[in-house]
Amino acid sequence: MPELRKDPITGRWVIIATERRKRPSDFRIDSPTLHSTRFCPFCEGHEQHTPREVLCYRHSGGPNGPGWDVRVVPNRFPALQVEGALDRQGEGLFDKMSGIGAHEVIIETPDHASSLATMSVVAIERVLWAFRERVLDLKQDHRFRYILIFKNHGAAAGASLEHPHSQLIALPIVPLQMRDEVEGARHHFAHKERCVFCDVIRQEQEARTRVISENADFVAVAPYAPRFPFETWVLPRRHGSNFEEAPRHEYESLARMLKETLQRINRALLSPPFNMIMHSAPFQEGLGDVYHWHVEIMPKLTKVAGFEWGSGFYINPTAPEEAAQVLRDAAV
Amino acid sequence: MPELRKDPITGRWVIIATERRKRPSDFRIDSPTLHSTRFCPFCEGHEQHTPREVLCYRHSGGPNGPGWDVRVVPNRFPALQVEGALDRQGEGLFDKMSGIGAHEVIIETPDHASSLATMSVVAIERVLWAFRERVLDLKQDHRFRYILIFKNHGAAAGASLEHPHSQLIALPIVPLQMRDEVEGARHHFAHKERCVFCDVIRQEQEARTRVISENADFVAVAPYAPRFPFETWVLPRRHGSNFEEAPRHEYESLARMLKETLQRINRALLSPPFNMIMHSAPFQEGLGDVYHWHVEIMPKLTKVAGFEWGSGFYINPTAPEEAAQVLRDAAV
Repeated sequence: MPELRKDPITGRWVIIATERRKRPSDFRIDSPTLHSTRFCPFCEGHEQHTPREVLCYRHSGGPNGPGWDVRVVPNRFPALQVEGALDRQGEGLFDKMSGIGAHEVIIETPDHASSLATMSVVAIERVLWAFRERVLDLKQDHRFRYILIFKNHGAAAGASLEHPHSQLIALPIVPLQMRDEVEGARHHFAHKERCVFCDVIRQEQEARTRVISENADFVAVAPYAPRFPFETWVLPRRHGSNFEEAPRHEYESLARMLKETLQRINRALLSPPFNMIMHSAPFQEGLGDVYHWHVEIMPKLTKVAGFEWGSGFYINPTAPEEAAQVLRDAAV
Repeated sequence: MPELRKDPITGRWVIIATERRKRPSDFRIDSPTLHSTRFCPFCEGHEQHTPREVLCYRHSGGPNGPGWDVRVVPNRFPALQVEGALDRQGEGLFDKMSGIGAHEVIIETPDHASSLATMSVVAIERVLWAFRERVLDLKQDHRFRYILIFKNHGAAAGASLEHPHSQLIALPIVPLQMRDEVEGARHHFAHKERCVFCDVIRQEQEARTRVISENADFVAVAPYAPRFPFETWVLPRRHGSNFEEAPRHEYESLARMLKETLQRINRALLSPPFNMIMHSAPFQEGLGDVYHWHVEIMPKLTKVAGFEWGSGFYINPTAPEEAAQVLRDAAV
């Protein structure tokens, strides 16, 4: 019997269609075929082929040359432009503003062939520190309300370059799904004076059926009402609304958890393409007690997006309890 | 300069990234390659290969045999099950109910090789009447709150069979995006005592820049804040909350408009895969004055879904004014 389940944060219902159940081996996975023979502007020695770096962790050499571990550069084809005023305008019913924002690329390693699953914990931690530094810097710009940090890994997940990288987009607005999450969390807090994510973590730790793994600071779970097969959330145990305000030791702990989780996903699902998204509270809204930052990982297993695009309604052929079991068993 | 635009119904902001502008010819389109040589259970003469029909318009023959124009059958691999009680349950924080619902397939024509763009207006009107009849029937079941009617055309849009068909899913819940739309429309009505869609139609008809075409009863527009390149909405001029309650003559008029719009899309964009979704008010909520039914068509032009999946935040490389111009010029 299929089941309808409601996400306790957003209120989104999904169908867990157990009759359509799929084992990991049933997914037809588009392997991330990008043109690895093509010239790569992100490789060491090619620094002159990107815009000038806005942040760089380096062990030798000078700016915009070799010798770096992590480089952050503006996106060469930015979706938004950093200079200018917001210039909010009405057009009758409609509202618009100029496309002000930052669009940066975090080049995670000089090594073209590595990935978050194969990099050292120290190297991943460095990437997380780069995220943090960029957020702290961009947050000072009062035009911005939200910073999206995300990773498209593999062509089928939207990556156009193979070299390990993430992206950061600073926005003068809050994206609709983050808005839905924040409103849900606010609603829960208003009724219970508790963070909904903290409640979820507590319940998952008691039930155990959807917990994938844990360490001192983080829990990886298959969420109760996942949109996608093998969707995985990595949540800090300690309540905190913003990624960039986490205590120092949590970055090392998160690096370890991300590496381990991606290793499990790669082993169980044959290194699928995936999207990874940082969820952190919008600034300027005083959400310290209400929201709980976390990371969402969505392997791209189902070949196509059908009506889900236009309805926001998801049919998921894999129960999260089964996904969690498969990923627990895929320990490396 | 890119622009941030807000959809006046849902409040969703999108980036219209004019610097990344794409002409129709720039899109790499996955042509709908399905296995047309494979046995087709939807073709005339193969009626015994589908579940028994729940509705059929036929010119000759008896039930579940040849001689039909439109057939509606239960989906052989339903995401939901029609028998049973809703059985709402809490599980601590979480809410679930049994996956009760109807999942049907509307086989639009016996002709495997045709499509809504090539079928006669009369034949398309018949499909719309079949939608209507099924909705009126399923609405009587008080377990249901929403009926999703959608079409995935082409493999890249999620279709698994090439033969022209749509799907219908009756649900005991309201999908999140429809909920966002309804709340937006309710909010507008509460402030203005007017339907937000009626206001949009009026403004679009004055501005003209985003109108693609019009007939006596319908307007096809590129919406102000589209998520996807060449996203197209077909709206009835006359206010009405529910598709199935439209006056008789509107079905003929809608058939004509859908055919024409899909012909324009096929001509301008080389017959792309697309999703088409009927947006109609949830039942049982008394939304007669508030909501305005319509059809949304989303050509599948950008090859992949990246972080949009997880953030609900969209970057669209084609301004709707340009899309409307291209589709206006693609008159057949």
